[in-house]
Amino acid sequence: MSTTSEVTAMSDVPQGREVGVAILGHGTVGSEVRRLMEANAEAFSHRIGGPLALRGVAVSNPTKHSRTLPKELLFDDAMELIAREDVDIVVEVIGGIEYPRKLVLAALNAGKSVVTANKALVAAHADELADAAEAAGVDLYFEAAVAAAIPVVGMLRRSLAGDQIERISGIVNGTTNFILDAMDETGASYDDMLAEATRLGYAEADPTADVEGHDAASKAAIMASLAFHTRVKASDVYCEGITKITAQDIEAAKNAGYTIKLLAICERIRSAAGEDSVSARVHPTLVRRDHPLASVNGSYNAVFVEAEAAGRLMFYGNGAGGNPTASAVLGDLVGAARNKVHGGRAPGESTYANLPLADFGQVPTRYHIDMHVRDRVGVLAEVAAVCAKNGISLRTVRQEERDDAARLILLTHEASEESLDATVTELATLDDVLTVDTVIRMAE
Amino acid sequence: MSTTSEVTAMSDVPQGREVGVAILGHGTVGSEVRRLMEANAEAFSHRIGGPLALRGVAVSNPTKHSRTLPKELLFDDAMELIAREDVDIVVEVIGGIEYPRKLVLAALNAGKSVVTANKALVAAHADELADAAEAAGVDLYFEAAVAAAIPVVGMLRRSLAGDQIERISGIVNGTTNFILDAMDETGASYDDMLAEATRLGYAEADPTADVEGHDAASKAAIMASLAFHTRVKASDVYCEGITKITAQDIEAAKNAGYTIKLLAICERIRSAAGEDSVSARVHPTLVRRDHPLASVNGSYNAVFVEAEAAGRLMFYGNGAGGNPTASAVLGDLVGAARNKVHGGRAPGESTYANLPLADFGQVPTRYHIDMHVRDRVGVLAEVAAVCAKNGISLRTVRQEERDDAARLILLTHEASEESLDATVTELATLDDVLTVDTVIRMAE
Repeated sequence: MSTTSEVTAMSDVPQGREVGVAILGHGTVGSEVRRLMEANAEAFSHRIGGPLALRGVAVSNPTKHSRTLPKELLFDDAMELIAREDVDIVVEVIGGIEYPRKLVLAALNAGKSVVTANKALVAAHADELADAAEAAGVDLYFEAAVAAAIPVVGMLRRSLAGDQIERISGIVNGTTNFILDAMDETGASYDDMLAEATRLGYAEADPTADVEGHDAASKAAIMASLAFHTRVKASDVYCEGITKITAQDIEAAKNAGYTIKLLAICERIRSAAGEDSVSARVHPTLVRRDHPLASVNGSYNAVFVEAEAAGRLMFYGNGAGGNPTASAVLGDLVGAARNKVHGGRAPGESTYANLPLADFGQVPTRYHIDMHVRDRVGVLAEVAAVCAKNGISLRTVRQEERDDAARLILLTHEASEESLDATVTELATLDDVLTVDTVIRMAE
Repeated sequence: MSTTSEVTAMSDVPQGREVGVAILGHGTVGSEVRRLMEANAEAFSHRIGGPLALRGVAVSNPTKHSRTLPKELLFDDAMELIAREDVDIVVEVIGGIEYPRKLVLAALNAGKSVVTANKALVAAHADELADAAEAAGVDLYFEAAVAAAIPVVGMLRRSLAGDQIERISGIVNGTTNFILDAMDETGASYDDMLAEATRLGYAEADPTADVEGHDAASKAAIMASLAFHTRVKASDVYCEGITKITAQDIEAAKNAGYTIKLLAICERIRSAAGEDSVSARVHPTLVRRDHPLASVNGSYNAVFVEAEAAGRLMFYGNGAGGNPTASAVLGDLVGAARNKVHGGRAPGESTYANLPLADFGQVPTRYHIDMHVRDRVGVLAEVAAVCAKNGISLRTVRQEERDDAARLILLTHEASEESLDATVTELATLDDVLTVDTVIRMAE
């Protein structure tokens, strides 16, 4: 009798080949990946066409994990685990660059597909990793590297594969969005809201990578590479963080109907001669309050895409955290495992377009310039003349009286970074200009 | 000399096998698909690994299209075009159900992959089509069937394949969202705003499929099938349109901090005994003004997903129109063509979970009940007693004085449809209740 019921039970779950998985790292993400792999084993088995089998978890200190994992699954030598014959897919969730790079390359070279959540690694070494995956005929997946479970990579690699992307504007760092949103809401200073973010666990003890924009720059590099079929590395991305944003900047933006967001902007720039180049940049940006990105609050992420045929699309969600990152890793793992069972490969790196990178000085943007000037007749004419001379035309000018000085806020039409730099330098030399306080770029 | 340059030019573009494409239909979507295939031929060739070659376009009246298409590409016999040996992929953008069903089945049975934008067809016959695709070992793609270029299908099939979806709440019909949004903004009646939608081209001459919710129901069926790995057909979806929504309903919602949206809701319902079932329904729904879905304006679409690990995600964009639909069709076409060149198959139908459909009477929801009662002491007690007797507990009650009668607005806690029906029937029999004007369900 028991034989019959066993046969029935077994025939319910696909009898395809077992897919061996190694997880490198057992921190917040790695432990969630392992837990969910176990909890959803049957569902994944159906979705893949065969069961996932965890071969081991590589950790630097096995003793630390001996209570959550059986001893035979714990490996202190990641290379030994990767090299096992029964490992088909390696999941890298360690972080850092050099060490995981060595491991991922070893895995790819040994014919294992790789799923990684490591944006810094992908943004620095996509070319080398892609070449290794291509040579071995295996998959390299990295959905979790950009905005966790918001499926930005899948959308760019697959869903929009039949379209031409013009621009991506993303809020892809939760820490800085939390700080800017809190400054906007409370009128408090950057330092106070950074302290608040740290207290609430939204900022790390050393927040440099977030607040200086490096984390967002890695994601910008990955998005630009996918969107424009061109190799863009983190070091190619112009990057400016939020540490200089003041409460006064936020207030001035508010008064003009804007909010300040740290945007990762990836853009196709078409020259007058019809030649395309790619600009990837991260900087504080004024966003109109009625733009969908303006209402992305707290630590949420959102990616706004403009494409030729699809028009304007936005993707919104949790862009970080153990669970959302694990969701993205597991989605990739199911995809990579399906390919191991059924054959076929995910779209690989695509860099055929190989567009030149735009010279940042030539990128056209609109600017918001905030300055203090002497309160006397003729100042505005002087300022306007300097702008005109440098090819910057003004869209609106607002003047506020302040004791003996006046505050002048200029919003410009589109101009190049070069013209702007020249303008600001020249404005600062005018006798009647006391200080040029802030220059912030504007979206669209 | 010319030989050299030809060789160089050719070596730039992948020399993989040509993938033959047949397009069935040359309306708004079909003609955009054809135009963009041509305009982006080189890019697609790189992304696929070989060129797409248009073998023909099937139209009912070839003469009508003889100015836009060369004669040799025009076919009045779709079956003849499908049957051609050099056709690998068939794109169906005709609309309707029975005729395209015959064509799509013929294509699949002949071993051609199919890309369709036809939600009514997929929602009615997914099982039969999936079986045919499976038997022939080919792909069936239908991203454009749900919300055009918003990649809902890809997200459910792939990106969230490692997660467990709990609920989807979608604004998936632009016509009804335009009408409701315009009613909300202007305070005008349904009839006036339907007329406005028709005038502006947002509503068709016969708007039935949109305003009665049938179009949204097809999309709900497709989303529920993908999300819960269960076969759900359009006819399984509870469906209620927006034709009975009055200016007074909109105003009452506004006063309570809500807006009314036509939502397609796909939900996993867990019984007290821990058993899952699937509910798919379309009805006007009160959405809190601070919910991301509330700010989806005009004819835009948005799909809000709640998943176990990913948390809350939202996808937003143009859900209809020739261009966005063509973008989705072409994304699928590039995917299907890649598989023809490189081998491999897209994830097929996945119905392993095979969950039962929830009995609509048992689905728990919160309700907004708007009624007129006699303005005298004791009415509220009577009404509350009827609710309590039927197991409905009240969250808030608001009473407005109106000449001789009073208006009573109840917001309930969660209760089943059955309890609600019983309550409303009994309330209507009370002497002091003059009319039960509206019952609207609430999101979350």
